[in-house]
Amino acid sequence: MKISPVKGTRDFYPTDMAVRNFIVDGWKKVSLRNGFEEYDGPIFEYLKMFQIKSGDEIVEQLFSLTDRGGRDLALRPEMTPTLARMVNQRINALSRPIKWFSVPRLFRAERPQKGRLREFFQWNIDIIGVDQTTADAEIIFTTIDYLRQTGLTPQDVKVRISSRRLLAAVLKSYGIPADQLDALYAVLDKKAKLPIETFEQMLSEQVPDRQTLDKIVTFINIDSMSALEDVIQAESEEAAAFSEVKAVFATLKAMGVGDYCIYDPSIVRGLAYYTGIVFEVHEAGGELRAICGGGRYDNLLRDFGGPAISATGMGMGDCVLEILLREKGLLGESIAQKRLDYFVAFAEGYGGDTVYRIVAELRSRGLSAAFSYKAKAGLSKQFKEASAQNAGKCVIVGDEFKDHKLVVKDMTTGEQVLVDYDEFLSGLDTT
Amino acid sequence: MKISPVKGTRDFYPTDMAVRNFIVDGWKKVSLRNGFEEYDGPIFEYLKMFQIKSGDEIVEQLFSLTDRGGRDLALRPEMTPTLARMVNQRINALSRPIKWFSVPRLFRAERPQKGRLREFFQWNIDIIGVDQTTADAEIIFTTIDYLRQTGLTPQDVKVRISSRRLLAAVLKSYGIPADQLDALYAVLDKKAKLPIETFEQMLSEQVPDRQTLDKIVTFINIDSMSALEDVIQAESEEAAAFSEVKAVFATLKAMGVGDYCIYDPSIVRGLAYYTGIVFEVHEAGGELRAICGGGRYDNLLRDFGGPAISATGMGMGDCVLEILLREKGLLGESIAQKRLDYFVAFAEGYGGDTVYRIVAELRSRGLSAAFSYKAKAGLSKQFKEASAQNAGKCVIVGDEFKDHKLVVKDMTTGEQVLVDYDEFLSGLDTT
Repeated sequence: MKISPVKGTRDFYPTDMAVRNFIVDGWKKVSLRNGFEEYDGPIFEYLKMFQIKSGDEIVEQLFSLTDRGGRDLALRPEMTPTLARMVNQRINALSRPIKWFSVPRLFRAERPQKGRLREFFQWNIDIIGVDQTTADAEIIFTTIDYLRQTGLTPQDVKVRISSRRLLAAVLKSYGIPADQLDALYAVLDKKAKLPIETFEQMLSEQVPDRQTLDKIVTFINIDSMSALEDVIQAESEEAAAFSEVKAVFATLKAMGVGDYCIYDPSIVRGLAYYTGIVFEVHEAGGELRAICGGGRYDNLLRDFGGPAISATGMGMGDCVLEILLREKGLLGESIAQKRLDYFVAFAEGYGGDTVYRIVAELRSRGLSAAFSYKAKAGLSKQFKEASAQNAGKCVIVGDEFKDHKLVVKDMTTGEQVLVDYDEFLSGLDTT
Repeated sequence: MKISPVKGTRDFYPTDMAVRNFIVDGWKKVSLRNGFEEYDGPIFEYLKMFQIKSGDEIVEQLFSLTDRGGRDLALRPEMTPTLARMVNQRINALSRPIKWFSVPRLFRAERPQKGRLREFFQWNIDIIGVDQTTADAEIIFTTIDYLRQTGLTPQDVKVRISSRRLLAAVLKSYGIPADQLDALYAVLDKKAKLPIETFEQMLSEQVPDRQTLDKIVTFINIDSMSALEDVIQAESEEAAAFSEVKAVFATLKAMGVGDYCIYDPSIVRGLAYYTGIVFEVHEAGGELRAICGGGRYDNLLRDFGGPAISATGMGMGDCVLEILLREKGLLGESIAQKRLDYFVAFAEGYGGDTVYRIVAELRSRGLSAAFSYKAKAGLSKQFKEASAQNAGKCVIVGDEFKDHKLVVKDMTTGEQVLVDYDEFLSGLDTT
């Protein structure tokens, strides 16, 4: 019986797994050095939990299942609801700031397309319990710290930063009623994804007054902090929000990553739950969809039945990132290669126990070692096996072993040396 | 709205996650040094795939779901079917031996109990394409190599090794028909789990003849290789199977792990698909259920629509293992602690850009660093934050920074030294 994998999922053969590990290990390393602690939750949760943040529409995009008791469950499509649940459960025991990261496997029951699969990994970093914009800057810095260490430069990627609070104040000053904001955000969020005519058409449905519409379009086309500063009214709600944006840019500059960052008021993020600084990372060329996005969401914990505690975070999926790293030549072939420290070979008439003993000895010292399972393989066949496994060195057990000596062959240079077995063991690099 | 997690799943708070990482990282490290390559598959597969190996009963124990097209899917309850599917898909392209490992997250829709949850992790190692028992010994050695490096000794755990092929030959010589074997294996597998009377009652239902039953009970009570050797008839099918068992023990002895291993013919493994050497690891006291189990399964790839290729492997879950490691005191408290290389603090009147710059500098050198998000925190509050995050050292930015100098405080000894900033940076250990 022949079986295929489900569409939109991935099989990770060793070469694919090596790339996945390269990405995930990088996320983990950068999270730790930026002072985040790792957490995780279950793959499935009660379905209703995912409706709190994203409404009933989300149900359409979920893989749902039921348990024995007939309760409705769903595979997690994002990590933030689980984070909110977990933090609320222990809110009094957790010391603040809570600075957590996770690399969950997530699921979306959508039609698969380039950079968007039904099953994927997503790096999440969040800081909970800090009102100051330093935390927003810290989230953005950590994001850039990862991108930079993969080799992506400010010429490759741009962090587009904006403020929901500033946008709300500006729109309010243009006479847009507060209850219209969420619907307007949803339209503004589409700016980069739509032809300009379609975008302005959609916008005019929300904002029929031509003059107001022009003002909005002018505002979201501002492309620098200095241009922004020119339009901000002193001592207004706008001015307070603007000073937050300025502080974030100043911190990022001090941290040495200012050249990755630009101000872009058209970044609004679709979801209603963002409340302050928001950002997205895009390829500088701008062809791929967003590499990641995030921002401040000060009301979410309360929406999940907890206290009002501020929070800011970021999520980055592996699919678009991998496409970008591959295009930029930042996934070297060496990543995907199996590597062995030693292959233990034997000459005719030898093998067996001595080989097993040496292999076990090497492994117990933390070195990777293998041998041929074919008891009668000739030396040249064994060398082929060693090469196929990319062994750095071959140890050869032969006549010399009567004098307690081994031949060690460097598989790169081909050089062979005769060494005393005890000296060989005591000279091994251990990990 | 308050939401709880689903019963039988786990929330991994940072201290729990540290333990999970300790276990999983150990599995990965040992797999690599034993020459295995990592792979993974999707979390869900077509439901029918899981019925091939385990029959229709398995459906009861699965979390099932459907995709948009109404196709029946299931969360994976084990890894072997995915392994068989993936290997078969590329059977001609993969160089042999295929020596793969994986650490999948698995799911069972059972009632949760101690050591058995609905969602868990399982270490899988498999060697495909090797007929020789060296591969069986290699699987058992790798299993022990992991257990040994956690600190578990031969006094703590025992690897109980047996042979399905030998058992089949012995039962045949007692007159048991071949088509009765699978049903008999299922009963024999229960020996250790049932009171002796219940076990013999169940056995007598399969084997009504008292004399045959006594012979079987005598055979499965053999507890050493020498006692086994005494009952083996020369030049029989038994003798051939016995020589395989002997070879496995000899290899394991040569590899230095003979004292972990005992012969135990009552180990049969429940599943029909095992064909040769089988084994389980149990706590020496024998109170917990099996820590892991495995064996040779030469027909599985063919059952999954591929060619007839031999295979042998092992699976170890994280739940029972964690209980055992905890009981033996092998999960030190230090595992679960957040650790920070540096906390960058500031004296009154300082802070801001200089702090951000130093933090970023430390992180870019691979060191973990953090600072207080409270712009006006006093030094003693900052030291408390540093201690809460278990920082090794504090860097203090104060008056001395006018002369380009910093105070570095060792948080363990309390010792403080004044250092030049450039010398401090050039003297950092980098990773």
